[in-house]
Amino acid sequence: MQLRELAEKLRCRLVGNGEIEVNRLAPLHEAGEGDLAFVANARDLPKLEASKASAVIAHEGSPPCSKPALLTNDPYLAFVQALRLFYTPDRPTRGVHPSSIVQEGVCLAEDVAIGPLSVVEAGVTIGQRSIVGAQVYIGKGTRVGVDCRFYPQVMIRDGVEIGDRVIIHSGAVIGSDGFGYRKDGQGVRIKIPQVGRVILEDDVEIGANVTIDRATMGTTRIKRGTKIDNLVQIAHNVVVGADTVIAALSGISGSTTIGDRVTLAGQVGIADHVEIGDDVTVGAQAGVTKSLPPGGVFLGFPAVPHLEFKRSVAAVNRIPQLLMAIKRIEARLASLEDTMRERREEAQPSQPASEGGPQ
Amino acid sequence: MQLRELAEKLRCRLVGNGEIEVNRLAPLHEAGEGDLAFVANARDLPKLEASKASAVIAHEGSPPCSKPALLTNDPYLAFVQALRLFYTPDRPTRGVHPSSIVQEGVCLAEDVAIGPLSVVEAGVTIGQRSIVGAQVYIGKGTRVGVDCRFYPQVMIRDGVEIGDRVIIHSGAVIGSDGFGYRKDGQGVRIKIPQVGRVILEDDVEIGANVTIDRATMGTTRIKRGTKIDNLVQIAHNVVVGADTVIAALSGISGSTTIGDRVTLAGQVGIADHVEIGDDVTVGAQAGVTKSLPPGGVFLGFPAVPHLEFKRSVAAVNRIPQLLMAIKRIEARLASLEDTMRERREEAQPSQPASEGGPQ
Amino acid sequence: MQLRELAEKLRCRLVGNGEIEVNRLAPLHEAGEGDLAFVANARDLPKLEASKASAVIAHEGSPPCSKPALLTNDPYLAFVQALRLFYTPDRPTRGVHPSSIVQEGVCLAEDVAIGPLSVVEAGVTIGQRSIVGAQVYIGKGTRVGVDCRFYPQVMIRDGVEIGDRVIIHSGAVIGSDGFGYRKDGQGVRIKIPQVGRVILEDDVEIGANVTIDRATMGTTRIKRGTKIDNLVQIAHNVVVGADTVIAALSGISGSTTIGDRVTLAGQVGIADHVEIGDDVTVGAQAGVTKSLPPGGVFLGFPAVPHLEFKRSVAAVNRIPQLLMAIKRIEARLASLEDTMRERREEAQPSQPASEGGPQ
Repeated sequence: MQLRELAEKLRCRLVGNGEIEVNRLAPLHEAGEGDLAFVANARDLPKLEASKASAVIAHEGSPPCSKPALLTNDPYLAFVQALRLFYTPDRPTRGVHPSSIVQEGVCLAEDVAIGPLSVVEAGVTIGQRSIVGAQVYIGKGTRVGVDCRFYPQVMIRDGVEIGDRVIIHSGAVIGSDGFGYRKDGQGVRIKIPQVGRVILEDDVEIGANVTIDRATMGTTRIKRGTKIDNLVQIAHNVVVGADTVIAALSGISGSTTIGDRVTLAGQVGIADHVEIGDDVTVGAQAGVTKSLPPGGVFLGFPAVPHLEFKRSVAAVNRIPQLLMAIKRIEARLASLEDTMRERREEAQPSQPASEGGPQ
Repeated sequence: MQLRELAEKLRCRLVGNGEIEVNRLAPLHEAGEGDLAFVANARDLPKLEASKASAVIAHEGSPPCSKPALLTNDPYLAFVQALRLFYTPDRPTRGVHPSSIVQEGVCLAEDVAIGPLSVVEAGVTIGQRSIVGAQVYIGKGTRVGVDCRFYPQVMIRDGVEIGDRVIIHSGAVIGSDGFGYRKDGQGVRIKIPQVGRVILEDDVEIGANVTIDRATMGTTRIKRGTKIDNLVQIAHNVVVGADTVIAALSGISGSTTIGDRVTLAGQVGIADHVEIGDDVTVGAQAGVTKSLPPGGVFLGFPAVPHLEFKRSVAAVNRIPQLLMAIKRIEARLASLEDTMRERREEAQPSQPASEGGPQ
Repeated sequence: MQLRELAEKLRCRLVGNGEIEVNRLAPLHEAGEGDLAFVANARDLPKLEASKASAVIAHEGSPPCSKPALLTNDPYLAFVQALRLFYTPDRPTRGVHPSSIVQEGVCLAEDVAIGPLSVVEAGVTIGQRSIVGAQVYIGKGTRVGVDCRFYPQVMIRDGVEIGDRVIIHSGAVIGSDGFGYRKDGQGVRIKIPQVGRVILEDDVEIGANVTIDRATMGTTRIKRGTKIDNLVQIAHNVVVGADTVIAALSGISGSTTIGDRVTLAGQVGIADHVEIGDDVTVGAQAGVTKSLPPGGVFLGFPAVPHLEFKRSVAAVNRIPQLLMAIKRIEARLASLEDTMRERREEAQPSQPASEGGPQ
């Protein structure tokens, strides 16, 4: 692609020769001839000059450089958009691979592609241009929107509703039974039928080997634009708000509600039946045992505001000092007590054993 | 179903019109015409009156309400049993889907159903009425009892023994190799062949994407009635007792024994070669590093009795107070020391430098 | 196998009758007639005498026993090597199962076996004697070395490079998208195309349901001889060094580098963009937030050297003592202050209200 053309598509300001051809995008340290690199930080400009990159995406305010440049207020975003122009994901041929099993009453919109050895159960509908990889399972009556992409070996059970542009990575299990039992009179656990469903709204992305349980009754819901990393557990009846991000190995217990624009770092755990407010950030490995108000940053187990957590860590580190302070204090006290005793003895020299002796 | 009929099946006491038809079960806030709701708590009775539910399951002692009612000592259990009457899980047609690969020497009892694109290796036996979903793999010589259900994409390796009424959710891997190596003289890790097996006893349920490793030699065993949530790791040679519950993202290390009726909350970790006594509860995110006696509740890393954990958290919160107490004490000490010095100077006004000076 | 033959293969010193036949290997407590047991510890020799084992592998220095013995300096290693002789893993028939889908331009070396219902996409190459289980997916252009073994339901996406003797367990997902987004001007997350790759070097073993994301650009790499347990998450652009061991449910965040011969215990989390030095050990459930120098042992969140962690735990346990010490100190202080006040009153008996009174 010509640099001039790229400048237009990315809405960047072109400085230098716009006729050059850009063949590839590359991080600065790997960029060679014909590559477009990007410099997020003015510090890296000397590295750029030393590199073989043919052109660069840089910040509007950055000092002039010798290479043709695309200038913008957010070079990283422009680079991401350039990546999206250069690397359009592979589109398999449309249609159903003959080795797949598509049951009756399935409604496939135009340009849907279904890879080999997949199973699409009765009553499923799949919207335009959606791509279903190999060895995928889609259960009865599940509805899939347009422009979705399911990678190989995704498992979606019956009655799941999936919006548009939803991406699901391999090994994810959507709509498995919630973990619910009730003990009978003899203490034996009776399985509570899990008859609810799962809704994944538009623009959701689900990582590899994620598990999202169906509701006991009602709905487990992941709202618009939320992104979930690998190996995350979402229990029955959980509602995750919009534009939220959940990092790997986190788990959200049953009936909990997570707000919009929340960030859960890796290995976070959230108790059941709590509410996490909008814009909350929970730090890595934190364990949330109570509802959290909007907007804070929380750490530790049980999770507390992060300043409190840091104070606790600092406080614990001070305990050895405290022990020493107490030793010093005890020494000073003992010395004072000694002086007092001496004085008293000085003041009453003629009655040496008056107190303790037998009378 | 008629309410009267339901009353009999659930062994509840019927109050009011038993002729009405119940079409559906619903939580109180969602219940409409024709729905049977349940009220676990007398507090919710006003909500019941306001709802459109046609009938209700309520506690024997609860105040009378205007709707026909089924009264029982455990309304939630009765509701669960009603759910089980209303929502019998989908039974696929019996027989083997023609797209599945069933090797020689497989013994399928009557009414077994095997979904599309599954693989059943040589020497497998499957008991009556068991249902094997689509794209499941069952390895050589594995034995499956009666009334089992394996959801799509379950993976069971060779030589596994599975009891009756066992449920395994999608993505679970049963019988993978244990994680065992021995360094040779050059420090290179030699893989220890994992030649043991896995036994899942009757009424066990295994969540989605769970991993249960086969024993190195001998048996990894999950005993009767135990329920395991999603994304749990059970290492080689672990024994999990009966009626135990393990929540999501927990991990149990090699050769550890877990007792009966144990509860492990989410993200719990248990070290290798330890014994967890019967009836122990381990709180969320706790890390157990030693054997635990029966019956306690444990929290934290390293896990301690929960009262001790709470005391520790409270103690850490008191450190700032401790620091202030020490400051106050130091001020009082300094003031005492000053007074002492003054007195002494008062008492010996004529000998100002007697002690410290040269003599 | 004759004991004499085994002695030669294992390079052990034979003591006693070398003509006996050994049919099986077994742990000491399970060993019967015809079994070869092993005794790692001289303490267990009496148990050996009581057992029915026909022969034993024992330590060179151990006291003589009545059974034929193979003596060596590392009996456990010899036992492992014996296991490897006795239990050669099942080799499926070579060739591609007719139910599998192998696309054009695939290059399979001799003696490759591909199980039923697998998918091998265009441009894949697989080296000699590698075994691909049932229901496996191998994406476009992926290269697999010799003597590899992929268990059923492994998922490998496009462009992955896999060395020789690599073992991948069921449910593992190799080459899924990294978790990367950039917010646009409206705060909407734009997916960053993940166009990098994954390299698994020689002798790597990957556990069940592990997820290894492809790099955003460049490479996610697992170096030679590294072993990864079940349910581990390796994020995009991570580099894991050689001969490293990562236990179950651990997660490594994006762009982090792990050294050689590192041990991560279970449920460990490592932050993004950090470097873990060679020979580091991170204890169970620890959360590493910063780079770590080579060679230490770390625990806790945030992870600190393990002695520091133990000191902190001990320090917290001392807080109740500290509180009591402060109470005692306050009592002594109060008593001193009282004495002082009395003395002063004694010293100035004629001026009882001189200070506080109006003048």
